[in-house]
Amino acid sequence: MDNMKFAVIGGDMRQAKLAELLYIDGHQVSTFAIDEIENLVGVHRAESPMQAIDGAGCVVLPLPIVSAPGVLSTPLGRDTHELEGILSVLRSDQMITGGMIDSATYDMARRLGLSISDYYAREELVVSNAAATAEGAIKIAMDETPITLLGSKCLVIGFGRIGKILAHRLKGMGAVVAASGRSHSDRAWIDAYGYTALNTNSLEGHLRNFDIIFNTAPARILSKERLKEILSNCLIIDLSSKPGGMDFIAAGNLGLRAVWALSLPGKVAPVTSGIVIKNTIYNMLLEQGL
Amino acid sequence: MDNMKFAVIGGDMRQAKLAELLYIDGHQVSTFAIDEIENLVGVHRAESPMQAIDGAGCVVLPLPIVSAPGVLSTPLGRDTHELEGILSVLRSDQMITGGMIDSATYDMARRLGLSISDYYAREELVVSNAAATAEGAIKIAMDETPITLLGSKCLVIGFGRIGKILAHRLKGMGAVVAASGRSHSDRAWIDAYGYTALNTNSLEGHLRNFDIIFNTAPARILSKERLKEILSNCLIIDLSSKPGGMDFIAAGNLGLRAVWALSLPGKVAPVTSGIVIKNTIYNMLLEQGL
Amino acid sequence: MDNMKFAVIGGDMRQAKLAELLYIDGHQVSTFAIDEIENLVGVHRAESPMQAIDGAGCVVLPLPIVSAPGVLSTPLGRDTHELEGILSVLRSDQMITGGMIDSATYDMARRLGLSISDYYAREELVVSNAAATAEGAIKIAMDETPITLLGSKCLVIGFGRIGKILAHRLKGMGAVVAASGRSHSDRAWIDAYGYTALNTNSLEGHLRNFDIIFNTAPARILSKERLKEILSNCLIIDLSSKPGGMDFIAAGNLGLRAVWALSLPGKVAPVTSGIVIKNTIYNMLLEQGL
Amino acid sequence: MDNMKFAVIGGDMRQAKLAELLYIDGHQVSTFAIDEIENLVGVHRAESPMQAIDGAGCVVLPLPIVSAPGVLSTPLGRDTHELEGILSVLRSDQMITGGMIDSATYDMARRLGLSISDYYAREELVVSNAAATAEGAIKIAMDETPITLLGSKCLVIGFGRIGKILAHRLKGMGAVVAASGRSHSDRAWIDAYGYTALNTNSLEGHLRNFDIIFNTAPARILSKERLKEILSNCLIIDLSSKPGGMDFIAAGNLGLRAVWALSLPGKVAPVTSGIVIKNTIYNMLLEQGL
Repeated sequence: MDNMKFAVIGGDMRQAKLAELLYIDGHQVSTFAIDEIENLVGVHRAESPMQAIDGAGCVVLPLPIVSAPGVLSTPLGRDTHELEGILSVLRSDQMITGGMIDSATYDMARRLGLSISDYYAREELVVSNAAATAEGAIKIAMDETPITLLGSKCLVIGFGRIGKILAHRLKGMGAVVAASGRSHSDRAWIDAYGYTALNTNSLEGHLRNFDIIFNTAPARILSKERLKEILSNCLIIDLSSKPGGMDFIAAGNLGLRAVWALSLPGKVAPVTSGIVIKNTIYNMLLEQGL
Repeated sequence: MDNMKFAVIGGDMRQAKLAELLYIDGHQVSTFAIDEIENLVGVHRAESPMQAIDGAGCVVLPLPIVSAPGVLSTPLGRDTHELEGILSVLRSDQMITGGMIDSATYDMARRLGLSISDYYAREELVVSNAAATAEGAIKIAMDETPITLLGSKCLVIGFGRIGKILAHRLKGMGAVVAASGRSHSDRAWIDAYGYTALNTNSLEGHLRNFDIIFNTAPARILSKERLKEILSNCLIIDLSSKPGGMDFIAAGNLGLRAVWALSLPGKVAPVTSGIVIKNTIYNMLLEQGL
Repeated sequence: MDNMKFAVIGGDMRQAKLAELLYIDGHQVSTFAIDEIENLVGVHRAESPMQAIDGAGCVVLPLPIVSAPGVLSTPLGRDTHELEGILSVLRSDQMITGGMIDSATYDMARRLGLSISDYYAREELVVSNAAATAEGAIKIAMDETPITLLGSKCLVIGFGRIGKILAHRLKGMGAVVAASGRSHSDRAWIDAYGYTALNTNSLEGHLRNFDIIFNTAPARILSKERLKEILSNCLIIDLSSKPGGMDFIAAGNLGLRAVWALSLPGKVAPVTSGIVIKNTIYNMLLEQGL
Repeated sequence: MDNMKFAVIGGDMRQAKLAELLYIDGHQVSTFAIDEIENLVGVHRAESPMQAIDGAGCVVLPLPIVSAPGVLSTPLGRDTHELEGILSVLRSDQMITGGMIDSATYDMARRLGLSISDYYAREELVVSNAAATAEGAIKIAMDETPITLLGSKCLVIGFGRIGKILAHRLKGMGAVVAASGRSHSDRAWIDAYGYTALNTNSLEGHLRNFDIIFNTAPARILSKERLKEILSNCLIIDLSSKPGGMDFIAAGNLGLRAVWALSLPGKVAPVTSGIVIKNTIYNMLLEQGL
C-alpha cells in the first residue's frame, strides 16, 4: 500500500494509538477532536474537520462512531461535535470507516452521497478481538480466585470464537478444561482439541464440578435453576454481550461470585487493539484497490 | 437411546469393529457379508440380508457404500452382492445409513420408497476424521524425514478443518509452525493460535524456508513454478483429495520427495474410526427420535 | 495416614486456610493466635498454647516462623508471643514444623530437646511454589502491559524451577518465548521444549528484541550496561529474591518499567498455597511413619 | 570457533553426516573407514589413519567407539581396524573424542599418553537425545495402535529426561497423560506440568486404566504381578536401556503387546543426531579454548 494521508477523528486511546501507528508506518496523519492526549508523535492536529480531511485518502471515525444519536464519540475531545458536521465535509472518493456504525449514521451517509464501512464488523478484527478477550478473561480469573489456574477445573460455555481461543489458553495455563457446544460438530471440535465435551443444552448435573465457569454464549444459559447447582466458591465470568448470559439477580441472591466482563480488548490491550484496527483498515484499503 | 437391533452389512475393518462396538454397548447385532473376520465377539452372522435385517431398527451399509456402480462394497466378504438386492429387502421404517453414498444409490433408494442418509457427510464425523488425518500426517512426517519434528520448520497450507488441527499438533510436537490461509479472517485465526500467518495466494518467496510442507487445500496450490522454489531436502505431504494439491509430475522431475496421503483415518486408527462412526450413527438416531 | 490432632499456631491466611483444610480431611484441629479470622469452620480455638497442643500429634508453626528474633509471627493475632513460650510446652514425640526457620530457632529447639523441621525447605513445596510464582508473573505481565501476551516477545532469564514453568505457561498463552541458561545442558532443555535458547552470560545484543523480560536468576544479571540495551516500552519483571537480579536504580534512571515481584504464591493463590503446605506436611508425617 | 581440520574415523550414518556438516560449517574434513557412503560432499577420504589425522585439531572416533574389545566400530567400513592402530598415531595436542568409551579404551589412551573424552556422556547431548527418543516413542505408539493418540490414556513411568519430554509431547498430541515418579518433588513437577501424578512405587490398581504405557525408568518396574493388571489391548513401550524395565517373558505369556525400543535417536532422526553430536563437540572444543 502506498503512503497516503489519514484523517483520524474523535475516539479514545485506541484511536490516538492508531494515529501514531499510521505515522510510524510512513503515512501522513491529521487528527481532530483528540485533544486530551498531549504527545502524539508525528501527528498533525487539525483545527477543523475540514483541515483534517483535506487531501486525506482515508477518514477514520471512532469506535463507537457516536456517543449519542448523531453525536460524534469524542471521549478525549474538549468540545461536542455533531456527526453530520463531520460527514458533510467528506467526499465520496475518500474511504470512510468507523466502528459500530448505527443505522441512523448509515442513513445519513447515504443521504450525503457517501459510502461508509464498519471496520468493527470485519471478521478478522472480530477474531483478533476474541483473542484479546480470552486473555482478559484469564486475567480476571487470576484476579478473582485464590487458587492457581494450574489444576483448576474450568468450563467454557459456547465454542464460538471466544470459546475456542479461551479454552486453548486455559489449557496452556494448566487448567483442566471442559467446553460445551450446542451442535454435534462443536463437540467434535472440542474433542479434537482435547477438552472434555459437554452439551450446552444439558449442563445440569455438571455445573457443580467447576472452579471457574466462563460463559461466551449469547444466550441466557445460566438460569436461576442452573445457578443453584453451582458451588459457592465457584467464580462465574460472563463474556457475552448485553443482555448477558446469566441471571445476575439470582446469582446475587445465591451469593455467587459473578463478573460480567465487557469490552475487554480496549481495556487490557489498547495498543494491540490499535494495531488490529490499523491492519483491518489496511485490508479494507487493499480490497478497494487503494 | 434404548437398546435395539442393528444390521451391519458389508464393509471393511471399520465396519467389523463397529459391529463389535455396538454389541459392547448392549445392542443386538447381525452382520452380513463380513465373512473374513473370524472373531466378532457377540455378533450374529446372518446367512442372508433378509435374516440380518429382520427386526433391525437400523441398517448400516458400508463406507463407501458401493465398490462399483450398483455393487455393495464387501472387501471382507466371500461373494459379490448387488446393492439392489440388499435395498429391496429393507423397510421404510428402518433407519438406513451408509458412507459416501453416490447419486445412483440415492435414486435407487427413492425408487424403492426408502430414505437413506450418509453418515460420512455429517460434520461431526468430518471433524473427527480431520483429527485422525492430522495424526496420520504427523506419522508420515516422522517416517519420511531424518530430522526430528522438534525444531523443524513446517508449513501447513490451508486453515480448514485439517489445517487447524494439524498446525495444533505440530506445535505440540515442538515444530516451528507457519500456516497459510486465503482470507484475512483465516490469517487472524492463524495469528490467534500463535503460528506465523502467510497468504496462500502469495506463497512465493516463502516456500524455500521449510523442512516439511503439508498441503490441505483442495486446489492446485503447488504448481510447477512454486515447486521450483522448494529445497531438495524438503518433504511435501499432500492431504487434499483427488485431484490433489500439487503437480506430482513436476515434483518428480524436480527430484522432490512428495507423499500423497489419502484415507488416513481408516489406515492409522481403524478402531477410533469405528467409534466415530458409531457415535455419528447414534447422533442420527437420536435426532430422528429413535 | 490416620486422623490425628493438629495444633496450628500463628501465621497468616495460608495458616488459617490450612487449619480448615486439615479439618475437612477429617483431622481434629486446634488453633492459637489466629484471632482475626472469625469463621474457621470446624476448628477449635484454644485459649493457650498448652491447650492447643494438648494431644496434638503435629504442631504447625507459621511461615515465616518469626516476625522478629524470638517473636512468633502472628499477623492475625491480637497479642505478641515469644516463640520460646510456645516451644517450651511442646514435647519431643510431636512432629514440629514451621516455615523459613532461622538458625536461632533451630538452636532454641535443640536446647529444649526438640526436633523441628522446615516444610518450606522441601523440594515438592518449592516446585509447587514455582508454579504459583509463574502464574503470578503472568498476571503482572498482563496488568502492566498494553499489549496481549499473544504474539509478545518474552525472554525468561534463567531455566531453573520458575524459569521452566514460566516459559511453559508463556508459550501456552501464545507468546514468542526465548529462555536463557548458563550451561549447555540448560540450553539443550530450552531447545527440547521448543523455545529459543540464549546464553545468560552473553545476552548483549539480544535484549533489545523483547517486549517483556522476566528474570528468575538469583544474580545481578541486568546490570546498568545491559539495561541500556532494553527498549523503553519493554517491561521487566524480576522474580529473584533479595538482593534481586537487576540494578533498580539504573533502571529507574533509564526510565524503564521494572517490577520486583516477591512472595507471589501467598498473594495470588493463598488457597492453593494452603493446600500445598498441607500436602507437604502430610508427606513429612508419612516419611516419619506417623 | 576458528576453522580447523577434523578427522572423522569409523562409525555409522551419524558419523558420515557429521563429516558433511563439519564441512558445511567451513572446516576441513578427512574421513577414514567410512567407505560405503559414496557421496560425502566436500570431504577428503584418507587412505590411512595417519593421512586422516595429519594436521587435524580434532579427531572424532565413532559411537560406540568399539564394536568388540579393541576393535574400532566401522559398520560402514570395508576392513577391520584395531583401535590401538588408530590411537597410536594420535598426538596429545589433538582433541580426541568418541562415544560410549569403555574403560579398556580409556586405559589404552592413558598408556599412550593421550587424553580422550566421551561426547556421549555430555549432559547436553543426553538431553537432546531424550527429545529424539520421545519423538521416536510417539512414532512407535502411532505405528502399533489402532487408535488415535488424541484422547488415548497414556502413562509415562519415570519423570527423568525422557519422561519429561515424552509427557510434554503426548499432551501436545492430545493424549490424556499421567506420569509417575518416585519422589515427592518428581510428582510436584508432574502436577506443575498439568499431568496426573502417580507414585512409581504404587502403580497397582492404576495400570488397568491406560491404552499405552511408556516405561522410561531404568528398573524392573513392570514385574509379572503388575503386568497381570494391564488390559490386553494396552500397548507397552519400554524405553529403558538394558536390562529393560519389564518382564518380557511374562508379558509374552500374558499376550501383552510390548515393544522394547532402543537407540531411537539414530534410527528416527540420524541427521538431527549428527547435528547434536557436532554441536556437542563444538562445546567441548570451546571449553578447551580451541
